[in-house]
Amino acid sequence: MKHLIDIGDLSAAQIVHLLDLTDHMVEINQRPMPKVPALRGKTVVNLFFEDSTRTRTSFDTAARRLSADVMNFAVSSSSVNKGESLRDTIETITAMGVDAFVVRHSSSGAPQQITKWTTASIVNAGDGWHQHPTQALLDCYTIRTNLARPQSFDGLQIGIVGDITHSRVARSNVQAFNALGAHVTLVAPPTLLPPGVSGWPVSVCHRIDDIISTVDVLYLLRMQRERMVDALVPSLREYSAMYGLTPQRAKRLQQHALVMHPGPMNRGVEISVDPSELPGSTILNQVANGVAVRMAVLFELLGSSPDPARDQLEGATNKQEPRAHQ
Amino acid sequence: MKHLIDIGDLSAAQIVHLLDLTDHMVEINQRPMPKVPALRGKTVVNLFFEDSTRTRTSFDTAARRLSADVMNFAVSSSSVNKGESLRDTIETITAMGVDAFVVRHSSSGAPQQITKWTTASIVNAGDGWHQHPTQALLDCYTIRTNLARPQSFDGLQIGIVGDITHSRVARSNVQAFNALGAHVTLVAPPTLLPPGVSGWPVSVCHRIDDIISTVDVLYLLRMQRERMVDALVPSLREYSAMYGLTPQRAKRLQQHALVMHPGPMNRGVEISVDPSELPGSTILNQVANGVAVRMAVLFELLGSSPDPARDQLEGATNKQEPRAHQ
Amino acid sequence: MKHLIDIGDLSAAQIVHLLDLTDHMVEINQRPMPKVPALRGKTVVNLFFEDSTRTRTSFDTAARRLSADVMNFAVSSSSVNKGESLRDTIETITAMGVDAFVVRHSSSGAPQQITKWTTASIVNAGDGWHQHPTQALLDCYTIRTNLARPQSFDGLQIGIVGDITHSRVARSNVQAFNALGAHVTLVAPPTLLPPGVSGWPVSVCHRIDDIISTVDVLYLLRMQRERMVDALVPSLREYSAMYGLTPQRAKRLQQHALVMHPGPMNRGVEISVDPSELPGSTILNQVANGVAVRMAVLFELLGSSPDPARDQLEGATNKQEPRAHQ
Repeated sequence: MKHLIDIGDLSAAQIVHLLDLTDHMVEINQRPMPKVPALRGKTVVNLFFEDSTRTRTSFDTAARRLSADVMNFAVSSSSVNKGESLRDTIETITAMGVDAFVVRHSSSGAPQQITKWTTASIVNAGDGWHQHPTQALLDCYTIRTNLARPQSFDGLQIGIVGDITHSRVARSNVQAFNALGAHVTLVAPPTLLPPGVSGWPVSVCHRIDDIISTVDVLYLLRMQRERMVDALVPSLREYSAMYGLTPQRAKRLQQHALVMHPGPMNRGVEISVDPSELPGSTILNQVANGVAVRMAVLFELLGSSPDPARDQLEGATNKQEPRAHQ
Repeated sequence: MKHLIDIGDLSAAQIVHLLDLTDHMVEINQRPMPKVPALRGKTVVNLFFEDSTRTRTSFDTAARRLSADVMNFAVSSSSVNKGESLRDTIETITAMGVDAFVVRHSSSGAPQQITKWTTASIVNAGDGWHQHPTQALLDCYTIRTNLARPQSFDGLQIGIVGDITHSRVARSNVQAFNALGAHVTLVAPPTLLPPGVSGWPVSVCHRIDDIISTVDVLYLLRMQRERMVDALVPSLREYSAMYGLTPQRAKRLQQHALVMHPGPMNRGVEISVDPSELPGSTILNQVANGVAVRMAVLFELLGSSPDPARDQLEGATNKQEPRAHQ
Repeated sequence: MKHLIDIGDLSAAQIVHLLDLTDHMVEINQRPMPKVPALRGKTVVNLFFEDSTRTRTSFDTAARRLSADVMNFAVSSSSVNKGESLRDTIETITAMGVDAFVVRHSSSGAPQQITKWTTASIVNAGDGWHQHPTQALLDCYTIRTNLARPQSFDGLQIGIVGDITHSRVARSNVQAFNALGAHVTLVAPPTLLPPGVSGWPVSVCHRIDDIISTVDVLYLLRMQRERMVDALVPSLREYSAMYGLTPQRAKRLQQHALVMHPGPMNRGVEISVDPSELPGSTILNQVANGVAVRMAVLFELLGSSPDPARDQLEGATNKQEPRAHQ
């Protein structure tokens, strides 16, 4: 793997390999000193053309825990304002010596385009409505560890609820869940379903109540207030009544069912029950797993050891462990 | 100590303990390589909802000298702008793995509130008009080291001059100075004294000239220009004439008296003499001590050694020191 | 050397010394782990009063590769907004413990002024139209390594094209190129030549076509769009026709000639040929050399070893290299 642009580029085996590597990272994160020198001397550049504290901080934390140097670029302070082209920006930063760009951009395809202009690895941290592959990976990891299943998701019923059209999370997750063997049902009003959805490997329905009592995983998407302006939903209150996870609906969930959300939540819109009172809520666990998954991705792209888990992550790096006497 | 929210939560003995720990930190800061691994692997998040280069940089420097990782959040770039609640922001960052939040907020009580939503330690870096406990500690440390007194401040006369009402520095310092045994006199026009001041353990007067020649410490508060708009003082010129430290007044100070200011100064308002020409000015020494005190606080909250000064700060950490031969 | 303010303060021998030191830094940057502990425990503050991603990132990268701690100050978030004077800002940051300030400021002379208020070293990263000494050094280094010449630039013909009046790059480079022995020709319309240019040690002409086929180095300056507003050039199209490097002109360059630009380029204005198709383009090499030159400058100012190249940069620091057995 040189880049991570599109979750659809990965085979099921590659996804499982990254999830296995994430296990190691979770273990590192639970140590008293959650830091290993695996990527010491590597430079990771966060290049965010859209605002995102959550995802940027997650990548930042992941890179630091592997001892990489991190540089953060926000658009507002970059030469892009001086009319420099994106290509020149990428080539310039590359010339300074960078090993990976983590890119968020409002245009679908921008991270793919950037791969042509640099020798560094590119990680897509969200491009337009297109892809958000590390979100898909962290969600797969969260399901795998919280449902205590084997590698396969065979037979798993996952409902994704909300604004499918404008959601890179939905597109990425449908691909990843499907690759691992789950069956996905999209739940949304017709105005929030993309035109080509009939070609997707999913079922579609228009009422959350149709799936609430049968899913193993209820995945709620963020309802962006901007959609109201576009008149795609009549009101937030009506959206909440039709598609929100209310206390009444929460009672109808199966006992083992997970409730997931990519954050940040609009409390009172897509979710009007306090997630901390839902036994199946994985929302904060998703955040924690996001750091570990991004550690796994950065390590997979930039780490050099043939047997990374053994050589770089465990033995040589953990100076606190007891050593054999000489 | 799990948190540092309010200087009033500390006993005199606890304050003295932190000042003693600060002695070690000052020593570290004087080394050619002022950096120790005491908090390696710990993450400190600066969460500033109010602009502050000075205090944020001081905490940032303190954390780096202890080898902690530092992440800086300004409100403008955070998800708070997307309507995420403060609670969700705190819970999300906590889930990524953070050991301490350093919080500045315009609302009194916000840092206390945040303690309920996280397992991390909270350091109050200023909340509304309420508290600024590390400022009080650095001011106590500055007085202790510059007046060459024993642990107790018994009999010390300290005058605090300026806008008491809107000053978290005044509130914190009155408590700390009092706990250590000093006698505080507040000097301000009635419009800048809070309604409940009669219950404070202080004397009050309305003319700086009444105290100028008898205090051991003259503590000048920053006169915020915004107060003019509120008509609490007639003009900056009149304020300066009545309450400012002018060259004439500086001559009336006792020879050993200290002149202190929390910064940033409004030259020509609360102080119209160049502090670099005042032998008793501790203004830059306060800044330097601020880093050391914040190192002590972060170490107290996050360090784990039973005898930190000996084990983590001196021996094991200073790789440049000569070692016993084997 | 305590500061680097003005390239004119350096003798030719001092420039050559820094270029020789840059050779070591280029070698470090080519290692699998491009990081040495030479400045561990030192703090470098980037104090940028003008926006600059490119130069700031270059210094940031340089400092990190030497293991210094870096703090970035942009004006917008600093106490300067609260009316604090520049002097108080400098004195305050100095008191926190800083070893070097890297300063960019719109006023010529600001970095020089700042040297009076701090014990830290000052590196001028661009002040008004005055100086940009690290740009001059990186350009000298780029010429030296790409033309495979000895230390001296004797007989070298360098043409600098564009807005000389408003260019600190032109001022610095003319001095450095001249000190090393090159002959510089400035090419610009009369409106973009400074009044005192007749006293400069250069030739002047008004047509790029007069020099295009005879220079060893063609140095293109950025044409700032703001100049159009001032009516100093009639239009960008006309500027490009008269002074731009077009495909036709590129064919007339000598085979060994270098094409240089400080970036960011205005494609279609000062350059309308794709530099990646010009064999002599050093534009990205300049960026890479910028990091190495800034490492050399920071090391020269802050490093302490009497024989730095041997002691701190090679032997003791490169833990990956094989060592002599004992």
